[in-house]
Amino acid sequence: MECQDYGLTRKSERENLNLNPLQRGGVLPKEARKALYEFSDGYSVCDYCAGRLDEITKPAINSFLDDLANFIGTDHARTVHGAREGKFAVMHALCRPGDTIVVDGNAHYTTHLAAERCQLNLVDVPHSDYPEYRIKPESYKQVLDDQYDRGEDISLILLTHVDGDYGNLTDARSIGKIAHDYGIPMLLNCAYSMGRLPINAKELNADFVVGSGHKSMAASGPIGVLGLKDEWAEAVLKRSAKHAVKEIEMLGCTSRGAPVATLMASLPLVMERVKKWDLEVQKTRDFVGKLEKLGGVKQIGIKPTEHDLVRFETPIFDKIAQNHPRRGFFLYEELKKRRIIGIKRGQTRWFKCSVYGFTQEQVDYISRAFAEIVSAYDDIS
Amino acid sequence: MECQDYGLTRKSERENLNLNPLQRGGVLPKEARKALYEFSDGYSVCDYCAGRLDEITKPAINSFLDDLANFIGTDHARTVHGAREGKFAVMHALCRPGDTIVVDGNAHYTTHLAAERCQLNLVDVPHSDYPEYRIKPESYKQVLDDQYDRGEDISLILLTHVDGDYGNLTDARSIGKIAHDYGIPMLLNCAYSMGRLPINAKELNADFVVGSGHKSMAASGPIGVLGLKDEWAEAVLKRSAKHAVKEIEMLGCTSRGAPVATLMASLPLVMERVKKWDLEVQKTRDFVGKLEKLGGVKQIGIKPTEHDLVRFETPIFDKIAQNHPRRGFFLYEELKKRRIIGIKRGQTRWFKCSVYGFTQEQVDYISRAFAEIVSAYDDIS
Repeated sequence: MECQDYGLTRKSERENLNLNPLQRGGVLPKEARKALYEFSDGYSVCDYCAGRLDEITKPAINSFLDDLANFIGTDHARTVHGAREGKFAVMHALCRPGDTIVVDGNAHYTTHLAAERCQLNLVDVPHSDYPEYRIKPESYKQVLDDQYDRGEDISLILLTHVDGDYGNLTDARSIGKIAHDYGIPMLLNCAYSMGRLPINAKELNADFVVGSGHKSMAASGPIGVLGLKDEWAEAVLKRSAKHAVKEIEMLGCTSRGAPVATLMASLPLVMERVKKWDLEVQKTRDFVGKLEKLGGVKQIGIKPTEHDLVRFETPIFDKIAQNHPRRGFFLYEELKKRRIIGIKRGQTRWFKCSVYGFTQEQVDYISRAFAEIVSAYDDIS
Repeated sequence: MECQDYGLTRKSERENLNLNPLQRGGVLPKEARKALYEFSDGYSVCDYCAGRLDEITKPAINSFLDDLANFIGTDHARTVHGAREGKFAVMHALCRPGDTIVVDGNAHYTTHLAAERCQLNLVDVPHSDYPEYRIKPESYKQVLDDQYDRGEDISLILLTHVDGDYGNLTDARSIGKIAHDYGIPMLLNCAYSMGRLPINAKELNADFVVGSGHKSMAASGPIGVLGLKDEWAEAVLKRSAKHAVKEIEMLGCTSRGAPVATLMASLPLVMERVKKWDLEVQKTRDFVGKLEKLGGVKQIGIKPTEHDLVRFETPIFDKIAQNHPRRGFFLYEELKKRRIIGIKRGQTRWFKCSVYGFTQEQVDYISRAFAEIVSAYDDIS
């Protein structure tokens, strides 16, 4: 048999400005590209393994994990395949089928899947109404009080630090405090925050944090981070009865390959870039301001935004689409002509985007592009 | 804080002949290096995702999975993070805590860990005595009969197609037949076979096969393959109640990054190389013959070997070590001088090695190196 042509080229980042929030934090700096080249073969990081991935000294995965734990304010850090796999490992170690966990109403679908895979009951903490969709500490308290009144035990509280729908930054510290008052551990999903903004699990009252290398830490996927307090190490990093050094929830070793090398290479740069987070937020707010000035464009979620992922409602583009021969495709096509991508084909009523990591010049170009498109269709909008 | 220097260079494969069996099948061809370059950034394969990794058409992950399923003789194929994650997914989907599974006595430690993570009871099928350590179909039958007599239900049978200790190729077809006679599904762990030798799950009577991209399929880790018969799709590829397109055991998507691109790029070459498996076996047998001729070197496991991974007992090197000023380190150091690596530092009583993928000229060079070392220490051996 013959293989089909899989089209293994990707020009998205090379030839375009990609507004997809999923892609903005995972672009590799040259240091990580070099590491990828060095560690490209199979089990490349395992040349000097003595039985534990997290203890390998060449390359220095052990020192890296120490630095990483320091950086995120946890007692222990492990690499996992992604944030979702980290969430699953914690749920699987701490909960039993039928247990109940409490989760924010803006949780990523993988939180639901990890819980479903563990056969857990999910109780949602509702977000506030349109257009803010805010997750409030008092809502967590309310849900926990309700569950307590019903005599329901809660095994774990999960909070999405920054959600992927609205880019809302939650008050983790207060919610973590509530969790502690109830004596329930809290897992903070930092897929959209760790590596973009400074995270300190201890200050945020989080027992566990998970992060995503490919989403926000300038690493090649799949790679994630699991950080935890020492008091949970016995449960989550429990070792095998048969193979004394191997951690059960890690299935022995996790990231045995190139992605971990890219995460390591990027860490020093990531530690620097989180210090400039305020500039990223300001850049995003300016961008939002310019787009809203066009009229018929409105950012929803918390305002002013506290994150680079923003969601816009765009009745102006929907109106144009209704009168445009290319219908809903016009926006994608107009942007593509200007080498801007990352907004789904056919989408005109609303979209999510991010200008994270772009220079001010690039952001200005993007704002102008939107303005040009609006004015080009002045007659049909 | 400052990051430490992680030493992110790897010259092992570039500057040496690496005999580590773990590394031989994962060396990237140039096509896969190119794919790694193309898909280096974060979530690179997800630009055109409509919700399911396995259905992405650009790059053509969907066509690739069809080709892969054809290649390994299964109805369905998915990429997972590695063979161990594939085994865990199957066990987790099919078994409940407390269930019993039957496993060969040469199983990889990750089989034990996957079972332990699922809280399963393991019943081992013993291998034959030293020096062959063969796993026999009649031993499987015996164990299953015993379990049946005790009224014990078996949820799953696992067989290691080629084990990592002796490189013994097992009679999967016969053991699969026995499993079917008992009405128990069989999972075949092909981490050391899929991508090296031809595999056809249907012909081998396997309900499930797992493979390892980084170990045997010329791919960057971490990446693995899970193949299954249609009758198990409902259980193992079950979809989420809340997110209708997402598969629970895959946590939605698995290999969201560069490694899957390398596996795709390598598949056409892997499909070609398995056709030359007989040549690899013959090359290995010749190599074994040359080493055994040195005296004090003996291959153990099935003879003549049926795989490139071979284990040698080497009393000759142990004797030299006892009288050498560098003790057990001498062998590693003598080989290193000759640009040969992959045998652990300090190991002289026995070692595992592989010459898979080397040219005949390289293998001859390696054989001569061992001969030189033996004759150099003629006086103390």
